[in-house]
Amino acid sequence: MSALRKDPCTGRWVVLEDLWPVRPLEPGACPFCAGNESLTPPEIAAWGSTGRGPNLAGWKVRVVANLRPALRIEEPLARRAERMYDAACGTGAHEIVIETPEHEDRLSQLSREHIALVLSAWAARITDLKRDRRIRAVFVFKNQGVMAGAALPSHAHSQIIGLPVTPKALKEILDGARTHFRIKERCVFCDILREELEDGRRVIETSEHFAAIAPFASRHPFECCILPREHTPDFETTGSDALLDLAGLLKSLLRRLESTLAEPAFNLFLYSGPNRDSRPGYWTTLDQDFHWHIAVLPRPTQVAGFEVGTGFYSNPVSPERAAAELRNGPDWTAQGAGAS
Amino acid sequence: MSALRKDPCTGRWVVLEDLWPVRPLEPGACPFCAGNESLTPPEIAAWGSTGRGPNLAGWKVRVVANLRPALRIEEPLARRAERMYDAACGTGAHEIVIETPEHEDRLSQLSREHIALVLSAWAARITDLKRDRRIRAVFVFKNQGVMAGAALPSHAHSQIIGLPVTPKALKEILDGARTHFRIKERCVFCDILREELEDGRRVIETSEHFAAIAPFASRHPFECCILPREHTPDFETTGSDALLDLAGLLKSLLRRLESTLAEPAFNLFLYSGPNRDSRPGYWTTLDQDFHWHIAVLPRPTQVAGFEVGTGFYSNPVSPERAAAELRNGPDWTAQGAGAS
Repeated sequence: MSALRKDPCTGRWVVLEDLWPVRPLEPGACPFCAGNESLTPPEIAAWGSTGRGPNLAGWKVRVVANLRPALRIEEPLARRAERMYDAACGTGAHEIVIETPEHEDRLSQLSREHIALVLSAWAARITDLKRDRRIRAVFVFKNQGVMAGAALPSHAHSQIIGLPVTPKALKEILDGARTHFRIKERCVFCDILREELEDGRRVIETSEHFAAIAPFASRHPFECCILPREHTPDFETTGSDALLDLAGLLKSLLRRLESTLAEPAFNLFLYSGPNRDSRPGYWTTLDQDFHWHIAVLPRPTQVAGFEVGTGFYSNPVSPERAAAELRNGPDWTAQGAGAS
Repeated sequence: MSALRKDPCTGRWVVLEDLWPVRPLEPGACPFCAGNESLTPPEIAAWGSTGRGPNLAGWKVRVVANLRPALRIEEPLARRAERMYDAACGTGAHEIVIETPEHEDRLSQLSREHIALVLSAWAARITDLKRDRRIRAVFVFKNQGVMAGAALPSHAHSQIIGLPVTPKALKEILDGARTHFRIKERCVFCDILREELEDGRRVIETSEHFAAIAPFASRHPFECCILPREHTPDFETTGSDALLDLAGLLKSLLRRLESTLAEPAFNLFLYSGPNRDSRPGYWTTLDQDFHWHIAVLPRPTQVAGFEVGTGFYSNPVSPERAAAELRNGPDWTAQGAGAS
């Protein structure tokens, strides 16, 4: 049974599960491929099919529970003291978004319309999970490649975690954005967007509704950030036209990374606003101060001890250079940015 | 030229150096081996030899500047605005502690007396670097094994970084300890020590002056923490008897990890108090609220996207189980804990 424990000094929460050594998945058929639907836990939702029963082939994007979830929605939420320490039950959700029925496709190889279905799946699951007041934050991430920590089959998928506590990295962003707003009465991400679009050196690509930039203080080589150009706190409120626009930009960005870095491993994180209903009266200025965004962190280098232990990153590529290389990579003009 | 940049939302500092793609070191003789002293930058200090000129063989532990330092002490300290952002010059120090003249020895294979020389080198360099008021924190770390990010030759070494800003992970610990002290007027680490020694389930080993425990909210499988049993804010004030005692405990702990995990990759971090002179009047209760400690993080699993993006770790081994396995591993009673 998994349990949550809090570090008494830093406040960092950890999920503990006694699963060691991790049993490898049974070799054999890929459970994410079309036709193998019976090998996954029951389907939560599917996209891209009409008139199809659940757990059958014919879908384009499919969401299932994780076979070995770090957290379970069925667990009652109970925070408790464990002598001097703080602990909680492993309440939450851990779902898998299977991005395509085809084993070999990477996300970047799907059509813009197909990627928009993946984004719709993210939005729908976030909306649904946020209906549960015990869930404080919903976090979407994707690990592509072994260096990025992908443990599940290489079949393209992303993961959705609903957490009963605010994870530390999101809390830092929320707190930083709130502090900036208190002092300046402006959203820090709107400030960054205006600055970057004016300056131009770190802009990779823009579309009608979004901008992809290389952040000023990039932690990793070729780190990218996608922001909606209009202030929006929650990803899941994005309309379908804008999702299609985002799908095109994301596809283009991933192809730029692949052409510059030769199919790099990467982590993708979606930071959407936390669930206000889980903490009434707490995030009072969040609609004004928080701005959802996607971070894409290519992992051409191993994160070493220095970075893990200090939270102080050393990055061998300036974001100005990364943006220029991603902007001007081979034949981008010919293929047309954002085209599917 | 390296530069420091601050993320405007989270306050995370990043060192940027345009070094990409990282040029591999010239193949050939290991610059850390005895007899090859001329292949390193000039020696800063050496231990374990008498009547020997600098940069000659005959040392047991040798400290040199990093060939490609992330930071340089010669850079003037200048914080500046860069349009809306915060930046600073790459002032600081980046040194290498070569732990043994022998290429094949791991730290755990050195004698207790030899390991005490390594610890003395850490203490002496911290003391020296803290004399520079521009240096806010000195950080010692060690990466063993490729999974832990070791990039330099496999010859046993640790690294010392002197930083002109407080790195985020240390700031979190300092802030957490300060908050605990404000509320309870007790050091959080003294509380943890008392709790753990009383409870016993997460204690790995104790010596006269130190205790090695598996932290309650361990982020990684078999994570270990070594704390002085008496409240001490700064590692570098440790006397030579206690350093010898610590060397024995560290050797024993590393051998326990190696016997349980089959020569694991690991990161070791030393968190010592920051340089009070660099920020007069700021760390007013630090002598009472901060307690130096060493974290050893074995890296049998890859840190995946979830952990990097959320700061929320999922650990498949409970610290109670980790401590029991490390405590009761093969023939520990026979070899005698702490013996060299």
